Amino acid sequence: MATMQEVADRAGVSIATVSFLLNDTKPVAAATRARIEQAMADLGYRRNVVARALASRRTHIIAMAYPALEHKFGTSTAEFFTSAAEAAREDDYHLVLWPVGNDGVELRELLGQGLVDGVVLMEVQLDDARVGVLRETGTPFAMIGRTTELEGLTHVDIDFDTTVADAVQHLYDLGHRRLVLVSGDLDDPRFHAYGPWVRIGDAYRRIAAEHGLEIVVVECSDTTRAGHEAAAQILRDHARTTAVLVMNEFAALGVTAGLQRLGRDIPGDLSVLPLLMVPETAAMSNPELTIMRTPGPELGRLGTQSLIRHLEGADPLPPQLVPARLLPGESVGPPR
Amino acid sequence: MATMQEVADRAGVSIATVSFLLNDTKPVAAATRARIEQAMADLGYRRNVVARALASRRTHIIAMAYPALEHKFGTSTAEFFTSAAEAAREDDYHLVLWPVGNDGVELRELLGQGLVDGVVLMEVQLDDARVGVLRETGTPFAMIGRTTELEGLTHVDIDFDTTVADAVQHLYDLGHRRLVLVSGDLDDPRFHAYGPWVRIGDAYRRIAAEHGLEIVVVECSDTTRAGHEAAAQILRDHARTTAVLVMNEFAALGVTAGLQRLGRDIPGDLSVLPLLMVPETAAMSNPELTIMRTPGPELGRLGTQSLIRHLEGADPLPPQLVPARLLPGESVGPPR
Repeated sequence: MATMQEVADRAGVSIATVSFLLNDTKPVAAATRARIEQAMADLGYRRNVVARALASRRTHIIAMAYPALEHKFGTSTAEFFTSAAEAAREDDYHLVLWPVGNDGVELRELLGQGLVDGVVLMEVQLDDARVGVLRETGTPFAMIGRTTELEGLTHVDIDFDTTVADAVQHLYDLGHRRLVLVSGDLDDPRFHAYGPWVRIGDAYRRIAAEHGLEIVVVECSDTTRAGHEAAAQILRDHARTTAVLVMNEFAALGVTAGLQRLGRDIPGDLSVLPLLMVPETAAMSNPELTIMRTPGPELGRLGTQSLIRHLEGADPLPPQLVPARLLPGESVGPPR
Repeated sequence: MATMQEVADRAGVSIATVSFLLNDTKPVAAATRARIEQAMADLGYRRNVVARALASRRTHIIAMAYPALEHKFGTSTAEFFTSAAEAAREDDYHLVLWPVGNDGVELRELLGQGLVDGVVLMEVQLDDARVGVLRETGTPFAMIGRTTELEGLTHVDIDFDTTVADAVQHLYDLGHRRLVLVSGDLDDPRFHAYGPWVRIGDAYRRIAAEHGLEIVVVECSDTTRAGHEAAAQILRDHARTTAVLVMNEFAALGVTAGLQRLGRDIPGDLSVLPLLMVPETAAMSNPELTIMRTPGPELGRLGTQSLIRHLEGADPLPPQLVPARLLPGESVGPPR
């Protein structure tokens, strides 16, 4: 396989001149161009011209990599996605969605096609195989989420610490002293290193301890049915609970409906406060849920803008953490 | 701008030989290749090499065009998308999601980049601007949905007639004679020609008339809040209603919660039967909803396979209509 240096040597030009021609970054005199292209032809370099043109070609398309088989694509996700697509459009980019798995295999295949200028990474694991793929392929990227090792990585994320602190404080101020966190199911191998679940669990343990509260965590996968089971478990094993924080959206609807099916009034008997939810989902419940509102619109936009600034060589945006904010509904009240 | 014929003339070869080289479809002798590339260099044809290599290149990527700003991307949509992505993977294709609008403008821009081999069209309008764009650009496509004019178009869709007939029959057999259809809001200009809403409304009017039932339709956009209002309207204007069919998913959750907030027991006072819903959403309600289950997994798969057969020149799959099937829950019973 011929190298660019060999082409340059054979054509009697500098490697920079070959690069200018290949990448169309500076005009090259016709005679020089002919010499270089002859050298490329002699050395069988033609396919590389195409490959390099492809590689250097700015498509103005960015992909949001979303592991759709591992993670539910619900209303919250749609907010991240549509706000990212809008932000891209405003800067004359197209955003497309790649439903590629967490293992990075399909991501690598798609990146090999040279179709996009960069990638916004969603549903980030603490140690994410996709980050390795993006680095190895030299693909610019921004994370909505955080790996444990963040050095030099463009990212925005939810401020889980502030979100959990505000939620616990709100319940505490109302008089609640017996809380349960319905967390994600960290035993599920797809999620054992999923950033939001780990960070919310850690934050809850720390903050509950700071308030002198007993720490009770019920693991629960993100389905309404699992939520029903978590509700039964709370009433059976933690009967004096007065308020339930729920990490996941579908689980929160299930916990609410499950507690009601078992005869409990919300918020009369128990308060329910989802930690990451959108108003549309909150309105599905009866009573409408009081929620910590997921900052999807802000983060979809910030993540995309961070990537585009990176692509265009602008000063990077600083990493930003945005908390979910309390949005009152009817599912939280003082304890009985 | 030099043509391929001019390159062939200058190099003293046939246009076919130039094409073989450009598209990499047959080996070309090194000396001939050098002559052609010299001719291309002399004539300034280089960029075209890239353009044509791009144009002829099969990417094995197909796009699902989903108007994410006009249509909610909910759990039902996610089923179509993930089943389509799985079907594509099984045939060694990648499926990506393009959140492009119904007007076809952004679709045209993306198609111009030559990034995908074909398109699966979602949320089809009766007269869909995107179909024109796909035809003009010569892009292979399959529809999940139907335009009014279907001649020669690859498509699969929900069998709305059977879905509505089965739903009405089920309620009729239980003894219900006073039904309301909560339909989509056809006054909304984004949806006045949206196939599913128009077809379900038409089917309902015909089938209700066949059963000798009064035809009552309440228009309602697809949000839980609009569903709350529709519930109030039903109780105010159609007080003797015993069963409610609801077209849209979020509206159905809103109607259910709305009726309950106004003191009605479901199914004691009124039965609620959503016409297109997935079990996960049905389980969000309390009681869990009896639903007509959207055939998203089948249609996502069939639509994608239809496109891939088209791309690979296999015999086309016949157009298929798949009905939503009754999935019992706890929201439908006999009238009081």
